[in-house]
Amino acid sequence: MRGEAEEGATTIMTDLDTLARELLAGSTRALARGLTWVESGGERAEALVARLYPRTGRAHVVGLTGAPGSGKSTLARALARGARARGRTVGVLAVDPSSPFSGGAILGDRIRMNDLALDPGVFIRSMATRGALGGLCRAAADGVDLLDAAGRDLILVETVGVGQDEVDVMRLAHTVVVVSVPGLGDDVQALKAGLLEIADLHVVNKADREGADRTLGELRSMLTLLPPAESPAGPDGAPAVEPWVPPVLPASAAREEGIEALMDALDGHMAYLKTSGELDRRWRRMVGARVLKIAQELVARRLAHPAAADADVDRVARRELSPHACARLLLTRLGERTSHV
Amino acid sequence: MRGEAEEGATTIMTDLDTLARELLAGSTRALARGLTWVESGGERAEALVARLYPRTGRAHVVGLTGAPGSGKSTLARALARGARARGRTVGVLAVDPSSPFSGGAILGDRIRMNDLALDPGVFIRSMATRGALGGLCRAAADGVDLLDAAGRDLILVETVGVGQDEVDVMRLAHTVVVVSVPGLGDDVQALKAGLLEIADLHVVNKADREGADRTLGELRSMLTLLPPAESPAGPDGAPAVEPWVPPVLPASAAREEGIEALMDALDGHMAYLKTSGELDRRWRRMVGARVLKIAQELVARRLAHPAAADADVDRVARRELSPHACARLLLTRLGERTSHV
Repeated sequence: MRGEAEEGATTIMTDLDTLARELLAGSTRALARGLTWVESGGERAEALVARLYPRTGRAHVVGLTGAPGSGKSTLARALARGARARGRTVGVLAVDPSSPFSGGAILGDRIRMNDLALDPGVFIRSMATRGALGGLCRAAADGVDLLDAAGRDLILVETVGVGQDEVDVMRLAHTVVVVSVPGLGDDVQALKAGLLEIADLHVVNKADREGADRTLGELRSMLTLLPPAESPAGPDGAPAVEPWVPPVLPASAAREEGIEALMDALDGHMAYLKTSGELDRRWRRMVGARVLKIAQELVARRLAHPAAADADVDRVARRELSPHACARLLLTRLGERTSHV
Repeated sequence: MRGEAEEGATTIMTDLDTLARELLAGSTRALARGLTWVESGGERAEALVARLYPRTGRAHVVGLTGAPGSGKSTLARALARGARARGRTVGVLAVDPSSPFSGGAILGDRIRMNDLALDPGVFIRSMATRGALGGLCRAAADGVDLLDAAGRDLILVETVGVGQDEVDVMRLAHTVVVVSVPGLGDDVQALKAGLLEIADLHVVNKADREGADRTLGELRSMLTLLPPAESPAGPDGAPAVEPWVPPVLPASAAREEGIEALMDALDGHMAYLKTSGELDRRWRRMVGARVLKIAQELVARRLAHPAAADADVDRVARRELSPHACARLLLTRLGERTSHV
C-alpha cells in the first residue's frame, strides 16, 4: 500500500513538474490540462496552484456578471477582440452554465467564436464545477492563477449574477463589470440591487434596443442613491484621491459598439486602483475571501464524504464527544493533510 | 497577561460549574443565562455545551417552519398547552425575527402568552443570533441541548422557512412540521417546494378560513408527486416497516382546533422513528450536519476578524504562501484552540 502511494505521489510530481514548466512557457495544451486539474480539485490541483502561485500577479482580472440573456458572453468576446487590438493576450473563464461558451450559441456567434478560437492570443474555457460548497469559487480562483501564470494580460471571468457562489466569484476580480439590458423588467431590478454594491462598472448592453436610455438613466439615478464611497488616501500619505464613481456605459456587444470606451474604462479603473492605493487593500480582501472559500470547501468536502469522518461523528452520536470538540478534531485533521509539495 | 488569562479562565470554570449544576437541576434562571451564553457563542458556550451534552437525548425536538404570517408562533403556543395537558414540559426556541415571541404580538396573543408565561413547565425564548455564517444554526442546536439537559420533554424550534440557514435549523429536529395557510398565493407554493422534502408533517393553519380545503387538497396532491420514500428495514433485521407518509392536517391554532390530532401525529412520528430504526440514522445525520455547521462557523468567525489571521493572509498577499497552504494553516490553528474543558 505504502509503496503504491509513494509511486502515485512520484507520478504526480513528475506530471506536475512538466505541466508547470510547459504552462509557464505559454503552452495552451498545458493550460487546458491544468484547468482540468483545478476543475476536479483535490491534492493535484492544490500542488499545481502552490507551484504556480509565486509566478502570478501580472494580469488584470475582470469579472463580468449579469442576468442570463444580458449578452455577457458576446461582450466577453468583444472585449477579447478589443484587448487583442491593443496587443494584449486574453484568457476567458466562463463560470456560467447558460454561457454559449459551454454550448448554447446561435450560429452567428459560433462563427465569431471560431474566429477567436483561431487566435492563440485568446484562450476560452468554461468551468462546470458544482457540488461542494465554495467549490466553484475555489476552482475559478485557481483557474485565474493558471491563466495569470501562463502570461495572459487580461483575464475575463464570466458568471450569472444570481447565486451567492457566483457573486462570490466576482469578489476575486480587480474590476467587476455588471451587465444589464433594456427592458428585462423587475427581476433585473432586484438582481441589480444585489450586484450594485460590487459593481465597479456598469454596461447597458444591447443599447441599440428601445428603452436603453431609460435603463441608463435608471441605473445612474440608482447609483446616486448609494452612500458616497470614502475618499481613499493616496499611498504614502499622498493627497487623497477622488473616490471611484462607477461609470454607466452603453454598448452593443453584437455590433461591437462601445467596446473601445469600455476598454478605456477598464484601464481607467486599474489606474485608479494603483494611484489610490486601493489596489493593495482590494488584493488583500481578494486573498482573504479566497482563503475562506478554500477552507470552507475543505470542510464541506470532508463532510460530504462521511466515511472519512465516520468514527468521530459516531462518537458524537453516542454522546462520548461533544459536537464542538468533533468539529475542532475535524479541522485539525484537515489542516494537517499536507500535499506533496 | 498570562495571569489575567488564567484568572479569567478560573472565573469561567466556577461560573460554568454553578450554571451547569443549576441548569441540570431545572432552574429556569440558569437556563435563561445559559441560552444567553450560547447566543453569544465562543469558548464559554462551547464549554457549557461540552459539559451538558452527555446529559442530553431525552427530548423530542420538533421544528416548526413556514412563511411569515402562517401563525407558527400561535401554533407553537397551542402545542405547548397541548403538551402540558399531557403532562410534558416544554421549551420553545423562536429563531425567527418576525416571531411575536420577540415582540410583534397582538393584544389577545399577548394575554395568552402571558398565561403560558405563568407556567414554569413552559419555557419560551427567542434567539436573534445573526451574522457569522452558520452561527444561527449552531446557536439553535446548542440551545436545544440546554433545554434537553434541563429536562424539557418537548422542544419546539420555530423558524421562517425562507433562508438557507433557517431551513438548516430544521435539519436539527427529529420531526419537521411545515405550516401553511389558505390563500397566501404563489409565493407560498414556491416556499412549499423548497420545504416539501424536509417535511415530516404538514399543518394547514387557519383552517377555518375560506380555501382551506383547496390548500389541503393541493398539498396532498403535491405529496403524491414526490418519489416514494424507501421502505426502511426494521432494527436488527426485523421485517420492513411501512415508509412514513407525511400527514396533512388542518388546524386553527388561534381557536385551539386540531391541536390534539397534531399532538397525536407528533407522537406517531416519533414512534415510527423508533420502530423503523430510522431514529438512529436521522440522529446521525443531525449530528453530522451540526458538526459541519460548527466547523463552518469557526472558519467564518476567524476570517470575519482578520486581525487573527492577518499575518498569514499578508504572506499570501505577498505570494510567499499559497492560498491553499494558508487555508490549511488556518484550519490547524482553529482545531488546536481547545477550550478549558
